[in-house]
Amino acid sequence: MESPKISNRGNDVIASPIRKFLPFMQDAEKRGISVFKLNTGDPDLEVPSEFFKKVNAYESKNLPYAPSPGIPVHIAAWQKYYKQFGVDIEPKHIIPTVGCAEAILLALMAVADIDDEILVFEPLYVSYKSFSVMTGIKLVPVTLKTADDFVLPSMAEIESKISPKTKAIVIINPDNPTGKLWSEDELSSLIAIAQKHNLFVIADETYREIRFQGAASCLLTHTEAKDNIILVDSVSKRYSMPGARVGCLVSYNLEVMNAVLKFAQARLSVGTLEQYGLIPLLEDSKKYTDPVKVEYEKRRDVVYNALRAMPGVVVSRPLGAFYIYAALPVDSAENFVKFMISEFSDNNQTVMVSPMKDFYITEGLGTNEIRIAYVLNTDALTRSMEILQKGLNAYPRKTN
Amino acid sequence: MESPKISNRGNDVIASPIRKFLPFMQDAEKRGISVFKLNTGDPDLEVPSEFFKKVNAYESKNLPYAPSPGIPVHIAAWQKYYKQFGVDIEPKHIIPTVGCAEAILLALMAVADIDDEILVFEPLYVSYKSFSVMTGIKLVPVTLKTADDFVLPSMAEIESKISPKTKAIVIINPDNPTGKLWSEDELSSLIAIAQKHNLFVIADETYREIRFQGAASCLLTHTEAKDNIILVDSVSKRYSMPGARVGCLVSYNLEVMNAVLKFAQARLSVGTLEQYGLIPLLEDSKKYTDPVKVEYEKRRDVVYNALRAMPGVVVSRPLGAFYIYAALPVDSAENFVKFMISEFSDNNQTVMVSPMKDFYITEGLGTNEIRIAYVLNTDALTRSMEILQKGLNAYPRKTN
Repeated sequence: MESPKISNRGNDVIASPIRKFLPFMQDAEKRGISVFKLNTGDPDLEVPSEFFKKVNAYESKNLPYAPSPGIPVHIAAWQKYYKQFGVDIEPKHIIPTVGCAEAILLALMAVADIDDEILVFEPLYVSYKSFSVMTGIKLVPVTLKTADDFVLPSMAEIESKISPKTKAIVIINPDNPTGKLWSEDELSSLIAIAQKHNLFVIADETYREIRFQGAASCLLTHTEAKDNIILVDSVSKRYSMPGARVGCLVSYNLEVMNAVLKFAQARLSVGTLEQYGLIPLLEDSKKYTDPVKVEYEKRRDVVYNALRAMPGVVVSRPLGAFYIYAALPVDSAENFVKFMISEFSDNNQTVMVSPMKDFYITEGLGTNEIRIAYVLNTDALTRSMEILQKGLNAYPRKTN
Repeated sequence: MESPKISNRGNDVIASPIRKFLPFMQDAEKRGISVFKLNTGDPDLEVPSEFFKKVNAYESKNLPYAPSPGIPVHIAAWQKYYKQFGVDIEPKHIIPTVGCAEAILLALMAVADIDDEILVFEPLYVSYKSFSVMTGIKLVPVTLKTADDFVLPSMAEIESKISPKTKAIVIINPDNPTGKLWSEDELSSLIAIAQKHNLFVIADETYREIRFQGAASCLLTHTEAKDNIILVDSVSKRYSMPGARVGCLVSYNLEVMNAVLKFAQARLSVGTLEQYGLIPLLEDSKKYTDPVKVEYEKRRDVVYNALRAMPGVVVSRPLGAFYIYAALPVDSAENFVKFMISEFSDNNQTVMVSPMKDFYITEGLGTNEIRIAYVLNTDALTRSMEILQKGLNAYPRKTN
């Protein structure tokens, strides 16, 4: 008997770029090789203990749905959190989400219909690509170039990508995967373009506090564009707790918030325990995020300095998030990554990084590029970079 | 300056049917009136304490992403859970989801593209309507009739709704909102239709154990249709813990599972703490679900007997879930519900129920119907039914 066929979107959506390498990594570990995993944004730092204390202090014997607009005391904690950046919001301006991922999905659906277009910068955090396939929205890429330190291209180049179907511009700041920090000038220029063309700005500030230049800020302070900006956010990185699955979507645009609330009602709510657990962290946030920033800055220095010293490697100094992006003197970063985990080892150790090809929308870009997530301590990173250099030396298909 | 416009789907998606009555309910409570809330499926029963114990025993100081295919020990507990119903699954056949809601969304996207059609029975759990708008999929309703005790319509009637664009049939069993239990004959007929027309069957078994006739079962035992059936499930109702946000999607069709896994990777994972916390419940499930079923059966009897005794009320005896559906002798159930919470009270008490209009897709149906969720104890339900009868007596726009 014939089997029913799955949807085109089910076929077209891409697998996680690291997934195809998992079997090789598992094989390596079976062979007794220990793998330094620098491929995913899963922080190794400890979760502030106040979170677990608060979760364990949950007293009710019931575990009801949280309200779709969030548990009021949780929302009040977010209000206090944003206040430190000069952003005043009311409960009607915020909806908690299942991580930033869900906030992105809801924001895309709130601003764009099937076949509408959204401007993004590539290389791009891969989930945006998946969500665009799932929702039938087309992503139109503006390419940032390593050689230019990822500087914002000219207004003319950006405007040439805007069509009558364009609904929004996505800005990830600090950026995953480049580690770029958008300057105030760049942000103002993008907001001006959005206003000129009547577009939304989806501002993804998951890595807000992890920046190594200037103070943490929030795009919502651009009150000249109150109706344009939709903030998507997450507690995952700043408090090292991606397993909590809590983020939020914030906008002063009440039409957006009304649409997002209706979407959110269909899936009911965000975890009740985690909403309570996060209250002490959100209320006293700087105490937790300051040491995190200091730690990642040390790691950035280790990885950046090591990569810069490698012959033929082109690298840009990240000013935020915990990623660094490097072009390698190899034929193909995918082949090189596969080589590192299936053929190479040094003293029974090797390194796993992410090839960047799938972070691009434009075909043919990023083939020799990798992203390194510096989510291990400085000793492990120092050793990882040593292994990477030895791997590059041993790799047979180098290009220079 | 002009504001950017939200998407059509953001405009078109419906608000939760109970949401429009919330301000009236809050006003009633401000006036000192206590409201028996029978409008949402939020169980009042206690969560098995083993869940909280297991959550509190979480020892790591990290809270990493769970793997998208689930934490292996959590998946093993689901395997044991399904085994009691004669269903053997491997880890590749199951993916945990953020409640059944997310499982529904992922199942819809895995089987249907924009403008494709899915057959559903109305009245219908409202989230399906929202998800269809969000994903651009058209729901084609087959109407179940109170007067016929919601019996499955003829094969000819069902087949007349199938077009080349039809991709799946949704079966909620036991059913929300009707309380209907699908008979084995009905299920076999629907599976035969699905196979004949090469359709998927999305089986929503959130209320599996809450049934008052026959033993709990699982559609996946229909191994003659292994490639057709996609199960969507949840721990929310059977263990009284909707705030945990854990469900799953199960299918023997590996193309479906591959698509769903790729979708799931984009949003990363389901709550880490809850996946651990649920292990003892899933491993010894009957111990927790048997008393739950006994309690809801008592409540069903209280509510059903009271409604049946009310002049002019048409009601069908629910055989599962914890909902009962009633046609009232009123001009409009929405007006009546509004009357009950904004004008009527008895001894400073009143009752909140859900009008059913929004549970239909076909315009004009359900205008005089309500859904009652029997999520309070039998004393509260007895009193609620007394208030409902008094409200009906006092309501000025009765139809008989």
